Amino acid sequence: MEPKTPKESRTVITDLVLPGETNPIGNMFGGELLARMDRAASIAARRHSRRVVVTASVNHVAFNKMIPSGSVVTVEANVSRSFKSSMEVFMDVWIEDRENGMKSLANEGIYTFVAVDEMGNPVPVPPLKPETKTEKERYDAALRRRQLSLVLAGKMKPENATELKALFT
Amino acid sequence: MEPKTPKESRTVITDLVLPGETNPIGNMFGGELLARMDRAASIAARRHSRRVVVTASVNHVAFNKMIPSGSVVTVEANVSRSFKSSMEVFMDVWIEDRENGMKSLANEGIYTFVAVDEMGNPVPVPPLKPETKTEKERYDAALRRRQLSLVLAGKMKPENATELKALFT
Amino acid sequence: MEPKTPKESRTVITDLVLPGETNPIGNMFGGELLARMDRAASIAARRHSRRVVVTASVNHVAFNKMIPSGSVVTVEANVSRSFKSSMEVFMDVWIEDRENGMKSLANEGIYTFVAVDEMGNPVPVPPLKPETKTEKERYDAALRRRQLSLVLAGKMKPENATELKALFT
Amino acid sequence: MEPKTPKESRTVITDLVLPGETNPIGNMFGGELLARMDRAASIAARRHSRRVVVTASVNHVAFNKMIPSGSVVTVEANVSRSFKSSMEVFMDVWIEDRENGMKSLANEGIYTFVAVDEMGNPVPVPPLKPETKTEKERYDAALRRRQLSLVLAGKMKPENATELKALFT
Amino acid sequence: MEPKTPKESRTVITDLVLPGETNPIGNMFGGELLARMDRAASIAARRHSRRVVVTASVNHVAFNKMIPSGSVVTVEANVSRSFKSSMEVFMDVWIEDRENGMKSLANEGIYTFVAVDEMGNPVPVPPLKPETKTEKERYDAALRRRQLSLVLAGKMKPENATELKALFT
Amino acid sequence: MEPKTPKESRTVITDLVLPGETNPIGNMFGGELLARMDRAASIAARRHSRRVVVTASVNHVAFNKMIPSGSVVTVEANVSRSFKSSMEVFMDVWIEDRENGMKSLANEGIYTFVAVDEMGNPVPVPPLKPETKTEKERYDAALRRRQLSLVLAGKMKPENATELKALFT
Repeated sequence: MEPKTPKESRTVITDLVLPGETNPIGNMFGGELLARMDRAASIAARRHSRRVVVTASVNHVAFNKMIPSGSVVTVEANVSRSFKSSMEVFMDVWIEDRENGMKSLANEGIYTFVAVDEMGNPVPVPPLKPETKTEKERYDAALRRRQLSLVLAGKMKPENATELKALFT
Repeated sequence: MEPKTPKESRTVITDLVLPGETNPIGNMFGGELLARMDRAASIAARRHSRRVVVTASVNHVAFNKMIPSGSVVTVEANVSRSFKSSMEVFMDVWIEDRENGMKSLANEGIYTFVAVDEMGNPVPVPPLKPETKTEKERYDAALRRRQLSLVLAGKMKPENATELKALFT
Repeated sequence: MEPKTPKESRTVITDLVLPGETNPIGNMFGGELLARMDRAASIAARRHSRRVVVTASVNHVAFNKMIPSGSVVTVEANVSRSFKSSMEVFMDVWIEDRENGMKSLANEGIYTFVAVDEMGNPVPVPPLKPETKTEKERYDAALRRRQLSLVLAGKMKPENATELKALFT
Repeated sequence: MEPKTPKESRTVITDLVLPGETNPIGNMFGGELLARMDRAASIAARRHSRRVVVTASVNHVAFNKMIPSGSVVTVEANVSRSFKSSMEVFMDVWIEDRENGMKSLANEGIYTFVAVDEMGNPVPVPPLKPETKTEKERYDAALRRRQLSLVLAGKMKPENATELKALFT
Repeated sequence: MEPKTPKESRTVITDLVLPGETNPIGNMFGGELLARMDRAASIAARRHSRRVVVTASVNHVAFNKMIPSGSVVTVEANVSRSFKSSMEVFMDVWIEDRENGMKSLANEGIYTFVAVDEMGNPVPVPPLKPETKTEKERYDAALRRRQLSLVLAGKMKPENATELKALFT
Repeated sequence: MEPKTPKESRTVITDLVLPGETNPIGNMFGGELLARMDRAASIAARRHSRRVVVTASVNHVAFNKMIPSGSVVTVEANVSRSFKSSMEVFMDVWIEDRENGMKSLANEGIYTFVAVDEMGNPVPVPPLKPETKTEKERYDAALRRRQLSLVLAGKMKPENATELKALFT
């Protein structure tokens, strides 16, 4: 299969935080944001693979800023690496100030999806060809994250996780 | 503050998978399950701390089994360790077969919450006292996960993550 | 069919009251609670019968306490008696105080479900074997409630509702 | 206060059954209908009292017909009797056949509401003046249902429930 | 096909504005009202045609009054004219004051629907026979609106839109 | 106030059509799309004005293609002209084929918003400076649409709607 760039499947969801989506101190529920990120990431993975995709894991999501009710939230999802039939998707979440229009990075998250056929069996996906400096860094880090994931699931021995191990030794 | 056991804040959400919550091949959307897990985990963290809590991070969620429309899904959330003002919550997600009544483990996930006051500032939470063998193992692993989280966020040097490093050397 | 105990199909839904589920004076809508109770009760009936179940009637729900936005609400559903193909389910609804952790009984309700096959035709369900004192009291009262239901629907003459009649004479 | 007729506060909600509101055999969830009925009945009670109203109890709901996905459902709510600060509301639920346009009665239900002030304290409501034969029958039966409710809640002795007792003796 | 009157398919949806449906200054979102109007209008068009109907266009909606959270909103939909396989539906939206019971017209809107078969192909619909003065005025104006719609879509030359043109010359 | 270009407030919402949002023949409900368009357009108007905005009218929406369940739908909203305190927003709605990745224009729509202060009173907004050929054409047509709107609302005499009248004479 022909490699694709992250840009070809980039997905943007911009939407409001409605009053029914906030906690007792008036900020967006984490769970609501996790669901929006899943929708954005799954569309990016589907555009990359042109297949039905299912969420395989959430690798990490950091909630760095509270998001007040009424905010405009933008989730930008980019495929950061593809493996045999799975794709890692990296998301940046932005909020913007209504009055001065400034955008600031509120959260980021990493999900993994698997492309499947109608029976739910995994199918191959195209390789990813990163272009920008950030895309290349995320591409490299994705391999370490995958090793970490396999180690944590007991499917890889720590000593075989070469790139990950290099971080600590 | 008095330590509390996981049992004191254990939270169970049992619910159906409705037709509006499924993807094109008839299985529950990952994002919908992430949102239910956030609600269960936040109630456990709130019961442990008796404070307003906010989602700080999702450390890991593994979707091991597809969950078909019409399933009964049970999310059980247990606080697995508390730090100064944060709490790690470990969740097991079960589905059951309608005809034979058998339960099977479909997914698991780990979220971190921070207890806050009305202004959103962090406040201290009680220590956790694990009781069962599983609770003790999760308690120990929580420290390594926290180190990993701090390393990935650039807030701790890999060489200082003693317990985590020991995994690889 | 083998009798089952209430414990074998007990179902617990614990969840938050979200801001979008409250009336103008900030308390949970009755209708929203009725829908949650229906989901909990239907899961209990389904676990008892291992069949598809449909709501046949709501026999009584008493809203004794208002439930403020942000509350944690626990619905516990227990099958209280089974008849040929129908099951009465009794629910207790608890709310808890965030600051002191005390639980209090807010509401209770009784629904009846019928087990059906794929065509929607009634099918037999296992008998119920009550164990505790409360379970036995509810089991006895269920017969009077069923007579009352049949009398109100014009399907039984008041003079034949022996157990019910005994209350008044 | 001036008495009002049922007609003055009659409330009609006509709406579709959406695919996300149906059970595994393609019929409307009981809980979803209970929630719609609560909204219709609360508007009728609010129109009668011109006050904020809260659901006090569900006295009876009979689900006589399954309602398939895609149906048009009409809930008509009429205040059937008012007491000091409470109002009984009687609902008829109709479905209609798309192809021949015939309407048929699918369900009926009875809810009770209390009118409250901003603090949630009960306030008096106008008396009801029934006009048609059906309205008068429902008005009379409402008194027996209220006695039954009080007897079941242990707030009235069965021997004092004169009108109700008369049914059985 | 036999002509039908607007009254035969008149559809009324009365419902509350819930807190989760309001914007930052506490009024109902335009989008939420547009969705309710679509449901009311589609039921009216379906009752007129006894067919599956799909939204073809929104011709005009004027939001003349803000609708505060907690309001009771009534959407009344009447078929205003039918063409070969399409139907124009005119809606009046009312809100009422809780304390004095007065109704006032908040908005109005005009949608067009097409009746289709199972494959989505257009099918003929009955003619409309307007009865009241308002119904007749709306019937006449519907022709001009249709011409305007065709002109704006480039499917009719302005000089052929006889009735519409007459307005300006 | 400084003029702004359409690009500065362009807003994109990409999202899936979920099974709960479709009609009996499996296509997205018009009303659901109208609500998404309202959210996209209101964010664009808010970015242009940096004010709270409220929907004033829907001028036209054409549903040219049915949108099947499971589709990825992209709504792109651009401010097309601003008047004293109101802004016309033009939207293009795209769907894409999962298998070949082709995008096609499914619908378009035009809404008008008013910028308001905390009391709901209109406030001035910046002028729009169109840049591309399409933006300029839409800018010019917006004036005619506004005249048409005023004529239909009886707030302008047809003979004074100079630019609109020129279309027909």
